[in-house]
Amino acid sequence: MAKDVEVAERGSFSTKDYHDPPPAPLVDAEELTQWSFYRALIAEYIATLLFLYITVLTVIGYKSQTDPNLKADPCDGVGILGIAWAFGGMIFVLVYCTAGISGGHINPAVTFGLFLARKVSLTRAVLYMVAQCLGAISGVGLVKAFQKSYYIRYGGGANKLADGYSTGVGLGAEIIGTFVLVYTVFSATDPKRSARDSHVPVLAPLPIGFAVFVVHLATIPITGTGINPARSLGAAVIYNQDKAWDDQWIFWVGPFIGAAIAAFYHQFILRAGAVKALSSFRSNPSV
Amino acid sequence: MAKDVEVAERGSFSTKDYHDPPPAPLVDAEELTQWSFYRALIAEYIATLLFLYITVLTVIGYKSQTDPNLKADPCDGVGILGIAWAFGGMIFVLVYCTAGISGGHINPAVTFGLFLARKVSLTRAVLYMVAQCLGAISGVGLVKAFQKSYYIRYGGGANKLADGYSTGVGLGAEIIGTFVLVYTVFSATDPKRSARDSHVPVLAPLPIGFAVFVVHLATIPITGTGINPARSLGAAVIYNQDKAWDDQWIFWVGPFIGAAIAAFYHQFILRAGAVKALSSFRSNPSV
Amino acid sequence: MAKDVEVAERGSFSTKDYHDPPPAPLVDAEELTQWSFYRALIAEYIATLLFLYITVLTVIGYKSQTDPNLKADPCDGVGILGIAWAFGGMIFVLVYCTAGISGGHINPAVTFGLFLARKVSLTRAVLYMVAQCLGAISGVGLVKAFQKSYYIRYGGGANKLADGYSTGVGLGAEIIGTFVLVYTVFSATDPKRSARDSHVPVLAPLPIGFAVFVVHLATIPITGTGINPARSLGAAVIYNQDKAWDDQWIFWVGPFIGAAIAAFYHQFILRAGAVKALSSFRSNPSV
Amino acid sequence: MAKDVEVAERGSFSTKDYHDPPPAPLVDAEELTQWSFYRALIAEYIATLLFLYITVLTVIGYKSQTDPNLKADPCDGVGILGIAWAFGGMIFVLVYCTAGISGGHINPAVTFGLFLARKVSLTRAVLYMVAQCLGAISGVGLVKAFQKSYYIRYGGGANKLADGYSTGVGLGAEIIGTFVLVYTVFSATDPKRSARDSHVPVLAPLPIGFAVFVVHLATIPITGTGINPARSLGAAVIYNQDKAWDDQWIFWVGPFIGAAIAAFYHQFILRAGAVKALSSFRSNPSV
Repeated sequence: MAKDVEVAERGSFSTKDYHDPPPAPLVDAEELTQWSFYRALIAEYIATLLFLYITVLTVIGYKSQTDPNLKADPCDGVGILGIAWAFGGMIFVLVYCTAGISGGHINPAVTFGLFLARKVSLTRAVLYMVAQCLGAISGVGLVKAFQKSYYIRYGGGANKLADGYSTGVGLGAEIIGTFVLVYTVFSATDPKRSARDSHVPVLAPLPIGFAVFVVHLATIPITGTGINPARSLGAAVIYNQDKAWDDQWIFWVGPFIGAAIAAFYHQFILRAGAVKALSSFRSNPSV
Repeated sequence: MAKDVEVAERGSFSTKDYHDPPPAPLVDAEELTQWSFYRALIAEYIATLLFLYITVLTVIGYKSQTDPNLKADPCDGVGILGIAWAFGGMIFVLVYCTAGISGGHINPAVTFGLFLARKVSLTRAVLYMVAQCLGAISGVGLVKAFQKSYYIRYGGGANKLADGYSTGVGLGAEIIGTFVLVYTVFSATDPKRSARDSHVPVLAPLPIGFAVFVVHLATIPITGTGINPARSLGAAVIYNQDKAWDDQWIFWVGPFIGAAIAAFYHQFILRAGAVKALSSFRSNPSV
Repeated sequence: MAKDVEVAERGSFSTKDYHDPPPAPLVDAEELTQWSFYRALIAEYIATLLFLYITVLTVIGYKSQTDPNLKADPCDGVGILGIAWAFGGMIFVLVYCTAGISGGHINPAVTFGLFLARKVSLTRAVLYMVAQCLGAISGVGLVKAFQKSYYIRYGGGANKLADGYSTGVGLGAEIIGTFVLVYTVFSATDPKRSARDSHVPVLAPLPIGFAVFVVHLATIPITGTGINPARSLGAAVIYNQDKAWDDQWIFWVGPFIGAAIAAFYHQFILRAGAVKALSSFRSNPSV
Repeated sequence: MAKDVEVAERGSFSTKDYHDPPPAPLVDAEELTQWSFYRALIAEYIATLLFLYITVLTVIGYKSQTDPNLKADPCDGVGILGIAWAFGGMIFVLVYCTAGISGGHINPAVTFGLFLARKVSLTRAVLYMVAQCLGAISGVGLVKAFQKSYYIRYGGGANKLADGYSTGVGLGAEIIGTFVLVYTVFSATDPKRSARDSHVPVLAPLPIGFAVFVVHLATIPITGTGINPARSLGAAVIYNQDKAWDDQWIFWVGPFIGAAIAAFYHQFILRAGAVKALSSFRSNPSV
């Protein structure tokens, strides 16, 4: 660490009060032997379960309260705005709760972006995604168990392209939406900025939650808003109807492309370390 | 304290910049002699009174403004979303105000969870719950006094199972909803995390309020959302109709089970101290 | 200051990492000679002007967008929820902006509560209230100038008792609502708590804004929510119709009683310094 | 810096724990040679692009979901309240993300205000505005590409004066609205206040976002709310209809006047440094 700082000071910055952690190795055999690793997997599983449970329950509850075929009042329920708050508010709460345990990803696209930036190992990334997908399936399963009569009738919270939008538009909406989210995650966890702006780590979970909230405001009419492949997969597995499966690829390809662009934008443009970042991809954990 | 740190360093962590406080005794005779203890009871009483006053007034006001039997406009009023904000926003404000006086529980389920984790003594837990229930009854009583003509007509803010949901679903919704809340409380007050993440104590009241907010978005259609036995008891006592009493047990058993699972999850899984935590249940305050 | 801490340590607390500032004198001739005092008056005037301008404009705009006599859609506009956000959000922003200049009162009831607790001198309190009332009148005047055709038709944002509520209920709603606000202000600015809980000063403006927000959710149906005599006076002066003037006393007596109870509750119950607080009322600034 | 503090202490303040940075020069040739300057331009471009993309998409999506000519339900969609949240929430997220890179302006009026206060050089101010306008055009262009069939029908998110309001009212609404925003920006970034109130830099992006939110609540019925010339220009360029161009000057003149008044109010009234500030306009960067 002392050496690391020394090397940096020979570079272009005259004073440098932070240092980048070394890139995570692709396979870190040691972390597989630690309880804290399995605890992180459990935390990701439980957090994604709670995320899907609360949000899909909100969606189904809203639709049942405003169904004109029932005696329902069309203005009742929490509204599309309430649904967007459920997604954004829950991410704020869960990132706050799990940040210290697992890093608070709760989203395979976030994990993918952080893997590309070499913040997590490949093994950790893959197992996080598995835990997130299993958690999402469990969470939607709970909603179906609770709302049997309404669940299928109101679409099961599944993501699909709305009528009148092309595949390209849906894919674009997912790419940009995930870019907004993962760009915010990178901004919140950047060690360079943390050293300079004391507010960065303090507020971090709140702008991440707001990013999810505003993206939902914008793209619920287009795709129902995925920007989280585990969320889309969990709903599709439990809902299990053709349309949800036909569009499923959009909700994996789009978020992964968006996360990759955000990782690239943060590491190469904003951190201005194009050469250094390239060399860090050579995966030499002793740098 | 020096000794405590020393013991910890002989354990599995090489550096440990926090230490767990010793578990609270079951009966702490000394705290009964301190003014700060009675002040905490007063603060819990007043906070729960204000919580129920603001939230039930919001519920009754909303229903009176949107009643189709009156000349009311169905889109008027603050909406279900406004009701959820009243509950969540008020918890944020009250936890912020009372955290330094009583710990800011304002909810027997939170007190129960913190008692299970041995953060508060049995005497404190029981007397907090009594203060919270009396406060809730007083708060709903105020609303009834203010809104005599509307209070009974619009259901008195009482929690009950909505038509079409089984007892099991209502119980499950209360268990998971309270789990989300108490899990957030534990995450916000964990001494291990506070040492590591500077943002934990700074933001604490906000995610606790948001947890209450999002759970209301999800479960108002099912049970009206209890996740706070004092809130449910206060409304039932003042409303005092059969249906509210018949379902009352759900709003005690559910939240207490949810809080117990959250305490277990935090202490045994996330804190990874299964053996240590077990031994702490032996109640040796001199450890 | 060294003496002050010394005296405190001879008292009942063994360690005390804060000290109460001496009570403000009734008349502080020196502050009248300082530019910072007049700057604070200007800041209170401008902040209250902006507060009334934004909030009353929101009220009038909402009512014009949902008027069934126009071609308006009853679901259009920001809703009652949006109005509550305008009041709470604006207080958050303005307390944040003026806290370092004037203390960020923006409300005669807050000034009155802080005067009772001897945080501000009598001269400062009176001149703040004058500045706040002039600011409120100017702010509502701007709205009337902007919205001539709508302003009178939609009630001018004036506070008055809704049909069907007695004077006692209106007064009670204002007392408790102002209590919630001023209790939050005292909690946020308590030097004892600031020393102990690092999050108190960091978040302060946000829970104060949320307190205003939730009180509006609860009491808009009853009184339109005053809890700020300058706001009620400003709207009454510009609207200038009988009903607004007939009820005006409620919006001064209620908030002042509520603020007085909050000051009493904080200083005598929560600070537990009954004897000490009494002696501080003897106005000896050299203690 | 040591000299700077020394000079200050000879002034009227006995203790001064901050120092004002020297005023930025009009033309800073050196910054044009630094990568960090171009990185800041890229960050402003991308942030303004994302701001317009999310917000205009929300506007068009809301209007398409509530169009009575379609089978649409008038209560569906995120509502005007949701639109206000999209603008305010997005500014919160983007100021948080870009504060450390470019200062987080995302708005030519903010840049203009900070230029008047000599916080940024003229070259930086002009190039920031160009980047912001290009970003806004790109962002609205994306929305048009995504929503071809709806974009024109629902007004393209363009700012224009609503029927029944005079030009003077529209201009006034833009002036005061921008004043609220730029006043908040100055309060959040004041080095004097940062030294005294530890919460100022911590919360900064949140009150800035809330200022945008509440101004939208108030003035959407009048002008659609500009308070950001890049936002208004971007929408006008892509929408490209007469009415949007006819009113365009309002959305440049209004915000620039509002920002100038805010800069004047902060530097001359609140900072009380009339003489000193005047001298700083002489552009002597070695002071």
